[in-house]
Amino acid sequence: MSTIVVQKFGGTSVGSVERIQHVASRVISEVENGNKVVVVVSAMGKTTDELLTLANAINPHPSKRDMDMLLTTGEQITISLLAMALQVRGHEAVSLTGWQAGIRTEPVHGNARITNIETDLLKSYLDAGKIVIVAGFQGITANNEITTLGRGGSDTTAVALAAALKAEKCDIYTDVTGVFTTDPRYVKGARKLAAIAYDEMLELANLGAGVLHPRAVEFAKNYGVQLVVRSSMEEEEGTIIEEEVSMEKNLVVRGIAFEDQITRITVCGLPNELHTLSTIFTTLAQHSLNVDIIIQTSMDKDTTNISFSVKTVDVKETIEVLEQHQGRLGFTGIEQESGLAKVSIVGSGMVSNPGVAAEMFQVLATEGIHVKMVSTSEIKVSTVVDVAEMVRAVEALHVAFKLGEESVERVLS
Amino acid sequence: MSTIVVQKFGGTSVGSVERIQHVASRVISEVENGNKVVVVVSAMGKTTDELLTLANAINPHPSKRDMDMLLTTGEQITISLLAMALQVRGHEAVSLTGWQAGIRTEPVHGNARITNIETDLLKSYLDAGKIVIVAGFQGITANNEITTLGRGGSDTTAVALAAALKAEKCDIYTDVTGVFTTDPRYVKGARKLAAIAYDEMLELANLGAGVLHPRAVEFAKNYGVQLVVRSSMEEEEGTIIEEEVSMEKNLVVRGIAFEDQITRITVCGLPNELHTLSTIFTTLAQHSLNVDIIIQTSMDKDTTNISFSVKTVDVKETIEVLEQHQGRLGFTGIEQESGLAKVSIVGSGMVSNPGVAAEMFQVLATEGIHVKMVSTSEIKVSTVVDVAEMVRAVEALHVAFKLGEESVERVLS
Repeated sequence: MSTIVVQKFGGTSVGSVERIQHVASRVISEVENGNKVVVVVSAMGKTTDELLTLANAINPHPSKRDMDMLLTTGEQITISLLAMALQVRGHEAVSLTGWQAGIRTEPVHGNARITNIETDLLKSYLDAGKIVIVAGFQGITANNEITTLGRGGSDTTAVALAAALKAEKCDIYTDVTGVFTTDPRYVKGARKLAAIAYDEMLELANLGAGVLHPRAVEFAKNYGVQLVVRSSMEEEEGTIIEEEVSMEKNLVVRGIAFEDQITRITVCGLPNELHTLSTIFTTLAQHSLNVDIIIQTSMDKDTTNISFSVKTVDVKETIEVLEQHQGRLGFTGIEQESGLAKVSIVGSGMVSNPGVAAEMFQVLATEGIHVKMVSTSEIKVSTVVDVAEMVRAVEALHVAFKLGEESVERVLS
Repeated sequence: MSTIVVQKFGGTSVGSVERIQHVASRVISEVENGNKVVVVVSAMGKTTDELLTLANAINPHPSKRDMDMLLTTGEQITISLLAMALQVRGHEAVSLTGWQAGIRTEPVHGNARITNIETDLLKSYLDAGKIVIVAGFQGITANNEITTLGRGGSDTTAVALAAALKAEKCDIYTDVTGVFTTDPRYVKGARKLAAIAYDEMLELANLGAGVLHPRAVEFAKNYGVQLVVRSSMEEEEGTIIEEEVSMEKNLVVRGIAFEDQITRITVCGLPNELHTLSTIFTTLAQHSLNVDIIIQTSMDKDTTNISFSVKTVDVKETIEVLEQHQGRLGFTGIEQESGLAKVSIVGSGMVSNPGVAAEMFQVLATEGIHVKMVSTSEIKVSTVVDVAEMVRAVEALHVAFKLGEESVERVLS
């Protein structure tokens, strides 16, 4: 019995007639491997921007319902064109919108979560030997309202379909060849990983690796869907994302993530009370302001300072919100330091290896790089450094943790 | 209690951001008249062509199912943008795709007929005071397949909705100000009609007047929906299309239609048998070749000639089909005469006025125009003439039947 494979192609991969024809080739070779194939596609490269431009010209604050109505046409165009591209090459293909594919979501516009997938129709098409092409990023509510899944929506569609159909794997085709130990645009020694664990990928994704949306990774983790990130243009093995990368367990650090445009904000002279921390961050969360690393330092028994890092783009609004609530929060002043960057090492091997954070600090100290903030989790250590030292920090850590040495991964696997 | 009005805007009327904003104004003024308004829109001017170009680049013979999937995105874009345009001006508007609006069709792609409309949702939105915007040209089958209604589909959607909702009227906004006695681009004296009967409109539409699709007129006639054809750009009364234009019954001729690019084909030496006529035209119909005026002339008791007019663009294929079946049809030769045109007078008053055809021939004869073929129905007389004499024939008939004299219509009404 043939197995089911889900393939997902993003906006760049389907950005032109030629690209769509290339995607058709990719789909066909999976079919010729004897698999039943479900293809999930995004809107063609520029389509979404063009639709947004139209909407903006008409209404600067369009309703989310109508934005969903508008934007979902993008994937509907792609599914029909890909079906045509497969048909002209003699393959039977059926295009399905999100609602036709039975993708049910909660009743939220712009950022709905998938509640379930009715797979009967999908299965009957697959059993009939047809290639099924599903519009990513979209679903339908119980009241037949068209919804979208928000950022990373097509990835989520693909993973959810793979889970619902018990697919053997879910291949995410993208414009990179896989997941790297760190960003190869900055670090020459950066190396593509053969495999990575869900949690590691989550930490890397959240830290700006940008290959795959965290939501899709989490979904895959929860349902045990094996993901492969690979290039839509180049014939190369990608990176497998799965639960246990046991053969590499001893590779303590799997990758290094980094991002610039970080600012540290310090709220000074807060009352040293039980609810101070929760009050301040609840207030920020209510304004959809995300903070990252948080450090509390008590000045004396009555007052405390709280520092946290935010994206520089959010600094202005963050300070405005804090000042609006100064009376209630009771702080005496706000300080900020911009021009910072975050550098993080990620690896599930850290759990059983308590010296990793210390080794990281040692490497940075040897390089003369001053660490301004630290945050640790079971599989990640993040540091905030001056942006001028970001790349140097990454390079030093990449060498120190032997990430550039392919032999390490090979030997361990 | 407020009444329901259906407004339909075609592709040119919604062809740009500015046009969509203008359409919003039109909708709002109908709302401010105290009516419940349902708006049906087509795809924006160039959208369909752009989508067709994409499809053609991928597959010169795309499946009709996927063409429906592709093209229906066009109206979906328009409904969302129009909703946004109404919302920004403070009006509550709900956009609905064909399937959301409950427009059920037969299971045919590319040219489906509407089977019924489930109006519960539409009515509940209207009762809640919302403007309802429906994507024209599209529907859904019992198996949740997306279908399109073929040429004139948006007109048909509008009329069907007006019928299902028992709307007071259905305004078809277009790029002309109404229905004219003849084509004003050719004949200076052409005059806009205040009213015209369904059947007259049908004859005019079929003859190339092009304002409104015959299918929509037929639908309106069958369900007694009052149509108004009017300009989306100019504030002018349009032309009412209804069952009985009794006040004008005595206006014998309502309009003059004409088209060029007509060729007469004569099939010579056919066996003079009972089934000759049906065999020849069944054969052509099986190849989707439409013939118009048909004339049979018996040469002697054994053989007969059959002449018919076709659009010049269809001549080559028509002759090929005939020659393929020469053995079975048993004719001896085919003759053709191109460079012809058809000129027709239309008016429901003809039924009770037997001299109209004679008067037409008299006018043409006086002008020295030779009539090559004739066809008559209860409300139409068509003649085929040399294309060089087409406009002169129309002008002479327009004067002879006093179509340019506004007073005629006024006096009679």
